Amino acid sequence: MTVPQRIDPGPRMSKAVRHGDTIYTMGHVAGDRSGDISAQTADVLARLDATLAEMGSDRSKLLSVTIYLADMAEFSAMNAVWDEWVDGPNAPARTTVGAPLATAEIRVEMTAVAVA
Amino acid sequence: MTVPQRIDPGPRMSKAVRHGDTIYTMGHVAGDRSGDISAQTADVLARLDATLAEMGSDRSKLLSVTIYLADMAEFSAMNAVWDEWVDGPNAPARTTVGAPLATAEIRVEMTAVAVA
Amino acid sequence: MTVPQRIDPGPRMSKAVRHGDTIYTMGHVAGDRSGDISAQTADVLARLDATLAEMGSDRSKLLSVTIYLADMAEFSAMNAVWDEWVDGPNAPARTTVGAPLATAEIRVEMTAVAVA
Repeated sequence: MTVPQRIDPGPRMSKAVRHGDTIYTMGHVAGDRSGDISAQTADVLARLDATLAEMGSDRSKLLSVTIYLADMAEFSAMNAVWDEWVDGPNAPARTTVGAPLATAEIRVEMTAVAVA
Repeated sequence: MTVPQRIDPGPRMSKAVRHGDTIYTMGHVAGDRSGDISAQTADVLARLDATLAEMGSDRSKLLSVTIYLADMAEFSAMNAVWDEWVDGPNAPARTTVGAPLATAEIRVEMTAVAVA
Repeated sequence: MTVPQRIDPGPRMSKAVRHGDTIYTMGHVAGDRSGDISAQTADVLARLDATLAEMGSDRSKLLSVTIYLADMAEFSAMNAVWDEWVDGPNAPARTTVGAPLATAEIRVEMTAVAVA
């Protein structure tokens, strides 16, 4: 077996785990939860960039992203920020669904699988 | 690293991305969203077949499928169609949960991981 | 390609599928669904331990876990059991969201990816 590499392993979860050249991230939420869906999406994507960078990866190497929205009525607003961010020719497979999130203030959460 | 291969990469997402011999698909929904859960499940599975074929894979090589249902009361009706479709001896690991989907008409969405 | 290995492949799904040294599990729920969130979380984690063991893996080799809660108000109670269970230095990436589950009695479902 390959020993997985972890970043920020805490008592509860790791921010990301690498196995071979595949990276699995935790669900990322915004640091500032007072923002609207646009602000929180930008915040989440910036944090995802940072996590990928810590793992020697970047947004062009995303394989799959799962997006959870507190309110699917905010789908278009999330997409507007996503579309500016994503590396079009290298866009990941993506799934977006609605789901209650950890606190009522959190509008969006994203979990990614990427290549190192 | 292995360079991921993508099919139908758009400005927002790819239909599927291959990394090594692992394939990650986007969330698949029915093309005809006027159908009931049975019709939409059949539609989604046909589309998933097509995506897997484009990647040189098929339903016997599924590793994992996540199924999102707009209404968990439709679980049995979805399963009836799934059970006819799935390659029993080679059935994937599966998770099914309820979730609000992109539009109110969409009854079911499926995301898969498969071997190429 | 690598031929995937499956455990408990049924007509509907497999309990887990191994591809190379990566293991994908089905969504695990409690066997005793009369329990509260604490009891069901412990039950799910024991079942996950058993599945990982059948695949030659264990909780220290988890890569990613997705947790679905019937009621996000039970997040803290689930975490209390999780925190005792998880192998801290080797904690997986984790995502927790709310979702309607297969029956009203089911409080929590967990899907894992691990290294064999």
